Amino acid sequence: MKLHNFFRSGTSHRLRIALHLKGLAPDYVAVDLRTEQHLGDAFKALNPQALVPALELDDGAVLIQSPAIIEWLEETHPEPPLLPREPLARARVRALAAVIGCDVHPINNRRILEALRHDFGADEARINAWCARWISAGFDAIEALLNADTTRGAYCFGDAPTLADVYLIPQVESARRFKVDLSRWPAIAAVEAACARLDAFERAQPSRQPDAG
Amino acid sequence: MKLHNFFRSGTSHRLRIALHLKGLAPDYVAVDLRTEQHLGDAFKALNPQALVPALELDDGAVLIQSPAIIEWLEETHPEPPLLPREPLARARVRALAAVIGCDVHPINNRRILEALRHDFGADEARINAWCARWISAGFDAIEALLNADTTRGAYCFGDAPTLADVYLIPQVESARRFKVDLSRWPAIAAVEAACARLDAFERAQPSRQPDAG
Repeated sequence: MKLHNFFRSGTSHRLRIALHLKGLAPDYVAVDLRTEQHLGDAFKALNPQALVPALELDDGAVLIQSPAIIEWLEETHPEPPLLPREPLARARVRALAAVIGCDVHPINNRRILEALRHDFGADEARINAWCARWISAGFDAIEALLNADTTRGAYCFGDAPTLADVYLIPQVESARRFKVDLSRWPAIAAVEAACARLDAFERAQPSRQPDAG
Repeated sequence: MKLHNFFRSGTSHRLRIALHLKGLAPDYVAVDLRTEQHLGDAFKALNPQALVPALELDDGAVLIQSPAIIEWLEETHPEPPLLPREPLARARVRALAAVIGCDVHPINNRRILEALRHDFGADEARINAWCARWISAGFDAIEALLNADTTRGAYCFGDAPTLADVYLIPQVESARRFKVDLSRWPAIAAVEAACARLDAFERAQPSRQPDAG
């Protein structure tokens, strides 16, 4: 397998965590977003949407969209599970993931911020405020959902990492980059500390990737 | 079951389609986004994220986030299936859904457009241009993916509606509202025509809901 991705992309980061949790280590293919390599013909032949990540299988099939790839991973490599067994519990974990995957990350994506700079003349202070606004709204919701779950252990759900942690941790990393004060979300901070002790999360970190810089 | 939703919300619309395809008809509870009913304490007690839709089960459990609710529906009401059986095929359908669910809809969401108006002084022409930009990027990708699938029938995947159609159709409706010229995506237009012939899609339409107006 080949993982086409970029060290600092949040969707790449989440997919790397999921792959490491499943014990998979695809070949790392860096797609440099800074030089717009993802907009070139070679990458668009892999993924017409021109976004990272893409997972290329050994038979040449290409999977795109991290939520779809992670569900595929869960179906084809069920151990260790990243979703609980019971449907209502699965819905709770997927909802936490979707708060990040739908309502935080895409709005602070590189292409959106470039559009704000270009179309609306946003400077760095306004970009950071824009990102902080959507991160805060999402983290407020996640903090409330975590605190409402009385059966929760060290992670977002239960006693082992799930899809929810896979989505949350890259967003915490990104929040720090946008200078968001994380002290207002102690439950999220505790989850981050628990995840940081796991090898899969450590190895997936942007700073640990070959294209980091 | 009670469906807390708003007629014109795209995520509400997609969940209504999925419910109708599964033959389910929960009680309709309108949450009026125009009067910010979703920001009130009563709705936030149901969903701390303060976004529609939410599905309240008969035992009082509340499911949030349409992607999580729709996967729950598929797991608890498997017939008719909205995902194919084979993992790679499921990943293709989920990827089409995620192009809309992650990379188009959230960026054109009501709260984002209000922020653009308020923080960046965007007028209606710039709002429509903003929406058209992300809709076009997403529809270009979907059109390419649909055209690359040589085994496809009348819908986004195979010969029956799937998650992909459930996500796509509300976005087509929304594109029309933002005055996007749809003629550049003939494959999407053909899928829309096929879906329009199905009762579930017809009944889920915004204009057919009790709070429409």
